Amino acid sequence: MSDSFKILSPDGAIEPTGTWSLGTRAGDFVFIAGMRGIDPQSNELVEGDVARIRQAYKNMELIAKSEGASLTDAVRLTVFVTDMERYRPIVNAVQEELWSGGPYPPRTILEVSKLNQEDIFEVEGTFYAPLSNGHVKI
Amino acid sequence: MSDSFKILSPDGAIEPTGTWSLGTRAGDFVFIAGMRGIDPQSNELVEGDVARIRQAYKNMELIAKSEGASLTDAVRLTVFVTDMERYRPIVNAVQEELWSGGPYPPRTILEVSKLNQEDIFEVEGTFYAPLSNGHVKI
Amino acid sequence: MSDSFKILSPDGAIEPTGTWSLGTRAGDFVFIAGMRGIDPQSNELVEGDVARIRQAYKNMELIAKSEGASLTDAVRLTVFVTDMERYRPIVNAVQEELWSGGPYPPRTILEVSKLNQEDIFEVEGTFYAPLSNGHVKI
Repeated sequence: MSDSFKILSPDGAIEPTGTWSLGTRAGDFVFIAGMRGIDPQSNELVEGDVARIRQAYKNMELIAKSEGASLTDAVRLTVFVTDMERYRPIVNAVQEELWSGGPYPPRTILEVSKLNQEDIFEVEGTFYAPLSNGHVKI
Repeated sequence: MSDSFKILSPDGAIEPTGTWSLGTRAGDFVFIAGMRGIDPQSNELVEGDVARIRQAYKNMELIAKSEGASLTDAVRLTVFVTDMERYRPIVNAVQEELWSGGPYPPRTILEVSKLNQEDIFEVEGTFYAPLSNGHVKI
Repeated sequence: MSDSFKILSPDGAIEPTGTWSLGTRAGDFVFIAGMRGIDPQSNELVEGDVARIRQAYKNMELIAKSEGASLTDAVRLTVFVTDMERYRPIVNAVQEELWSGGPYPPRTILEVSKLNQEDIFEVEGTFYAPLSNGHVKI
């Protein structure tokens, strides 16, 4: 492995419960595992659709920030929901709030059959955090 | 944000209607949001399966080209359809046409439950457009 | 196309049967098409859930290795299954075996409606293989 590759497990993040890690840095990019609305305090799903979806984005943000990337440094989001009609408006509202009205990253939104733990929402984000900017682990 | 990061909104492209952008450049890569067969003139879905799927690829191509990447610079495509048996042969035929018989980029094709607007096809593409090649916005 | 971009077709890999390639190298990254449990000898699906899922990872690994990347250089995996309850435990067990107990790459796991050939499992992997490390085609 190169010096510019590392597996991420920042303080305050959720705990992976299986054979996966939260994210990686590789070169100038940060790749984050699909995040769901799990409360990092209890490692349990947050109650309420809006709160749960917001928590998923916050879980992603915490990992990105640990490598010096903010939400506006997202190069792409892929969003998975289990009901397009029901959850897409909530996803839009939560992103409007978290990105302060834009601009927003490119996004692909898909309705899939099932997520882990019968969950309703998952977001997979990729971020740009150039090493030459002197980004370091906070 | 770094000089080597930007959100893309080239002339002639479709208009994003929600909390998302068409694409980003980050370093040497171009990340494009899932593209569907929307006519950039009317911002409405193209009629006809073949024409609509071709339009989705053309929408992706226009954004890639704005950063100096052509279809043969795609590093990966992820294709989402709502009926594998029905649409995969069309996807193959359209790609054969657009890539002039190959070589083709790596592709993952998946049948999902639903796409936005009850659409039938979406393609998420990533491209390589090295800054050192002097790529500039056309 | 740049010198640092190439389409991958290493010896011993499965044969793409449609309008797609196995993978690309672009800069320091290797992008691999969704891999399924196809036996490269016969180009047919391996029998048995565990064996088939393991074969899919091995197919991915062979392509990554041809560019100097090992499984621990994966920056992200996206896993698609057609039955979350049935296949996720197998996926975990196979990854535990192949990654020798970890650490593991970030992973997103999704249940989708259908895969090509009515298959049960597909894995899309991205790897880091810096050119500056002198990685060459084996």
